[in-house]
Amino acid sequence: MVIKLVTRRLSKLIPVCDLNLPNSDWVNHIFSYIETNECYDKENFSLPYLETSLTYARHLSLRNIIVECPQEIDAITRLARVLSGKIFSSHSYANVLIHVPLQLQSKVHQEEGTINKKFHEHDTWKLFNHLRSHIGYDSRLGLCLEVAGDIPDKNTQKRWLGEPIKMILINSDLFVPDKDSFVRIPEPWMEFIVSILRASCRKIAILVKGKIPVSYMKKVALYLNEVFDTYRSNSLIDQFATGYEDILQVPLQPLQDNLESGTYEIFERDPVKYNKYTAAMTVALKRLPKEKPVVVLLVGAGRGPLIRCSLIAAAETGHEVHLYAIEKNECAANTLENQNLVKTTLNLNPKSFVKIVNSDIREWDAPELADIVISELLGSFGDNELSPECLDGVWKSVKPTAISIPESYRSYIGPAMSAKLYSDTLALNEGDKQSKTDYHYVSLMKGFYPIDSPKVLFTFEHTELSKCPKERDNQRYKVLEFKADIDCILHGFAGYFDCTLIKGIDLSIAPHNFTEDLISWFPMWIPLSKPVDVPANKTISVHFWRNVSKSKVWYEWCISEPEPTPIQNPSGRSYFIGLV
Amino acid sequence: MVIKLVTRRLSKLIPVCDLNLPNSDWVNHIFSYIETNECYDKENFSLPYLETSLTYARHLSLRNIIVECPQEIDAITRLARVLSGKIFSSHSYANVLIHVPLQLQSKVHQEEGTINKKFHEHDTWKLFNHLRSHIGYDSRLGLCLEVAGDIPDKNTQKRWLGEPIKMILINSDLFVPDKDSFVRIPEPWMEFIVSILRASCRKIAILVKGKIPVSYMKKVALYLNEVFDTYRSNSLIDQFATGYEDILQVPLQPLQDNLESGTYEIFERDPVKYNKYTAAMTVALKRLPKEKPVVVLLVGAGRGPLIRCSLIAAAETGHEVHLYAIEKNECAANTLENQNLVKTTLNLNPKSFVKIVNSDIREWDAPELADIVISELLGSFGDNELSPECLDGVWKSVKPTAISIPESYRSYIGPAMSAKLYSDTLALNEGDKQSKTDYHYVSLMKGFYPIDSPKVLFTFEHTELSKCPKERDNQRYKVLEFKADIDCILHGFAGYFDCTLIKGIDLSIAPHNFTEDLISWFPMWIPLSKPVDVPANKTISVHFWRNVSKSKVWYEWCISEPEPTPIQNPSGRSYFIGLV
Repeated sequence: MVIKLVTRRLSKLIPVCDLNLPNSDWVNHIFSYIETNECYDKENFSLPYLETSLTYARHLSLRNIIVECPQEIDAITRLARVLSGKIFSSHSYANVLIHVPLQLQSKVHQEEGTINKKFHEHDTWKLFNHLRSHIGYDSRLGLCLEVAGDIPDKNTQKRWLGEPIKMILINSDLFVPDKDSFVRIPEPWMEFIVSILRASCRKIAILVKGKIPVSYMKKVALYLNEVFDTYRSNSLIDQFATGYEDILQVPLQPLQDNLESGTYEIFERDPVKYNKYTAAMTVALKRLPKEKPVVVLLVGAGRGPLIRCSLIAAAETGHEVHLYAIEKNECAANTLENQNLVKTTLNLNPKSFVKIVNSDIREWDAPELADIVISELLGSFGDNELSPECLDGVWKSVKPTAISIPESYRSYIGPAMSAKLYSDTLALNEGDKQSKTDYHYVSLMKGFYPIDSPKVLFTFEHTELSKCPKERDNQRYKVLEFKADIDCILHGFAGYFDCTLIKGIDLSIAPHNFTEDLISWFPMWIPLSKPVDVPANKTISVHFWRNVSKSKVWYEWCISEPEPTPIQNPSGRSYFIGLV
Repeated sequence: MVIKLVTRRLSKLIPVCDLNLPNSDWVNHIFSYIETNECYDKENFSLPYLETSLTYARHLSLRNIIVECPQEIDAITRLARVLSGKIFSSHSYANVLIHVPLQLQSKVHQEEGTINKKFHEHDTWKLFNHLRSHIGYDSRLGLCLEVAGDIPDKNTQKRWLGEPIKMILINSDLFVPDKDSFVRIPEPWMEFIVSILRASCRKIAILVKGKIPVSYMKKVALYLNEVFDTYRSNSLIDQFATGYEDILQVPLQPLQDNLESGTYEIFERDPVKYNKYTAAMTVALKRLPKEKPVVVLLVGAGRGPLIRCSLIAAAETGHEVHLYAIEKNECAANTLENQNLVKTTLNLNPKSFVKIVNSDIREWDAPELADIVISELLGSFGDNELSPECLDGVWKSVKPTAISIPESYRSYIGPAMSAKLYSDTLALNEGDKQSKTDYHYVSLMKGFYPIDSPKVLFTFEHTELSKCPKERDNQRYKVLEFKADIDCILHGFAGYFDCTLIKGIDLSIAPHNFTEDLISWFPMWIPLSKPVDVPANKTISVHFWRNVSKSKVWYEWCISEPEPTPIQNPSGRSYFIGLV
């Protein structure tokens, strides 16, 4: 329930006795609503209504306070000061939900001729953004977005996905009877509301504002319930990863650290990835004559999924395969020894064998040179688990004509606005603010606005496998340019990859060519050290480096347009992937 | 001596053996110079000449490395990455001096038609600023400014005063023979160089670049020596405070803490302030009839300077004065008791007396009501030592007609660009970055560019002294607007005050009406929490609050244009002046 606690005119408490409800009900079920008319009064130093309202809300330990957003810059500044002092610089647990309409009503437009400093535009996001700039990124600051009036353009709609919306207020005017005389919200509005529900994933309150005839009430409630039930995405990854949305995880380091059994188990569950690998191995085998045995080198065998894929493919083509399964993790190698995959594979050429080798590929002496090298060493950002460096290690163990599966891979980045992910990144920062924005985070990113489409960053191709690593360079540097369609804030980048296992068979987590039902990888969240305002139609120019030293690989990045930002992670001071 | 250590083409060490010099000479007397041509090569991932040069400079522990500033944005970004990794994210002690010409030479202008991203302007400050944005504010980052070519306009000249110039390179072309066939630098150039010397105060190196005929060498050296000898300002405060330039001090809290004897001594040395007070007291006494004794209430007597002033004035006018000297500091009151100022004042009306009262004015019970209240409770920012609150405390002890000396005072703020003061503020931040920019600092500010003239912020007037404090409000709120003439960075504000002791007699530390030879107050440095880019002709809109609670007084501030910044010091969380 949303109530006002203080009378506006006298700034006195409304006789709502706190004894009427047990405190837990006040805390969890009552939202206080605070109007902000007095913020417009430039001469009035103190804002008694606002201050008393906040004080009383605190007395009742209300968890949620809704505050009307003023429509004039200086009034927003005065409001920000009181909120900063009373809530955000204190240890208050209350969330402040700024009540912003999706569009300003026409009454404000009539005032355009006046000399005061109202924003002369429909863009209410700027009002909220101005307030936030005064307060800072704080997880207690949220939005109560009122859906009413005309629907804005698509980009303006999508930009809200990057904001911490905690409540949607549906104006009752939006409800229309449809042809069967049921109540509904017109399609474009409904789509927008559903997109917000999907982006927020977690708790979000929905309220209907305005008068609804009693006869419609039940219909409205049923209709909204239906909406809640159906908003969830049907994609396999969303079902698989429920609860992981927007959670930030530091990427795995499978070269430096050994994976745990449970981690292997999760990766082995992917229903698409291994079918693709089997198909790719089939294509590779078919390129080779059947008369001779085919030597397959599996780099990083884990608990065996690619052994299965290879043997199934070999059974299909009828090749005799000598499969050397290299695994540096002793525990996983042990699991491999305990399985007899050759025996259990139907129709396999009987001369085929699998040899488990517990070693680092870079230190192994091959008994016969490989025709095919197969591996699954890719991370969310493609090369970020050091696939290039590991595959460089096979050079002494392969024939000059050897084929690699995967054949090539590419990382992608796309500029992203996400107050949620950015606030969460800062919140990780105990102690040193700078270092945590130097990291990359694996995250099932939902609450963000993709400012522009992702573009290819770094490409790696694995041909000429027998070439000495000294003649290769896995360092990379690239400048990419993006454009913003509307005024927005750049908080960081979404990272993806795609890979070609073999010509014609691809895996991708990039939005433009996402492999359906692939669940093995979440995107990568790459934060900036500070948010950057990007005006509409301005270029975003990002510089990205992949650096390699004897002991580690690391990324550095910065933007140089629309304004230069600090070089992040210089020398890999915070985030690096260990080579040893 | 400035030398190159590495050959550019081969990126190999030049055969300068480190055994040729003792290490202390390498450290203190050798500057390495590094060219940056290779930064222009977009395809080249590594920058071997630059990296080898930095590595060798580090091997020799050179204290100063001069690095040529590229003239193209992307080249600056590539340079910034290497410097960030090799110097600024390491524990290197080396200063990096970016070599920037005051104006770009015409050769760059010829390239304007090309499609590359060179800055199409003479404004080399932007090149340096771009580099700094990538590196961050670091006290090891400095400038080697080459003075050559045409002289830029006054604002462009002055903007350099806000930058950390550590070396001036005078191009030999600037030297002209004057009419007596002596060598000199033309006046506008000389003025600019002297202004830089004054702003830097501390160590700055001056080098002459280019070929000078042997016959001129001695003349040039003599001439420059002369310049060095005369750059110091002749103002009394500069002589008095040598060594204190740009040092940041947390303001005194004389109400909450007692001053130390040495502090009183410094303040008593001011040759102007007490003459003005004596004159003001004389004017006040002359307004009163001679027939009756005049009751003077001195609030905060310290070690007695205002007793002396009052008695001298009384001797001049012939009034009988009853002077009650209130001092809350027990130690200072003791000093007062030990002096017999009445006896030593010549020509004093013999019925006059001085009564020392060791009490807080707010707790004192007056034996007779005062005609005149005299005090010196002002800080660098006027009201910041709580003069308003202290003088409100006299209301029970004064006649309704009582005069206050001072009668009124005003604080001023002016927007300032100062990379030096801003870096120094951040450097104070051990642990919590946010809180130290919440402070005000007393500082003899030298190294800054005043973006616009200061304006009046808060005004306090002391009339109707007998009015009850409850009816007064010492809280203040004001929005001020300023304008920038050229593109620059707002780092904070310079704070000043002026005061009217009595009509016609003023004291001021504000630049527009500075009281000559006044040495008691340095300006106030008021930092922003983050630097703000200000484009030419844009408005700077600053909001400033003076807040009062039962226990403390504090300021809050923020800017809302050209972009909103966080509310600083909300609730006085970091910086406040205690009332109890």
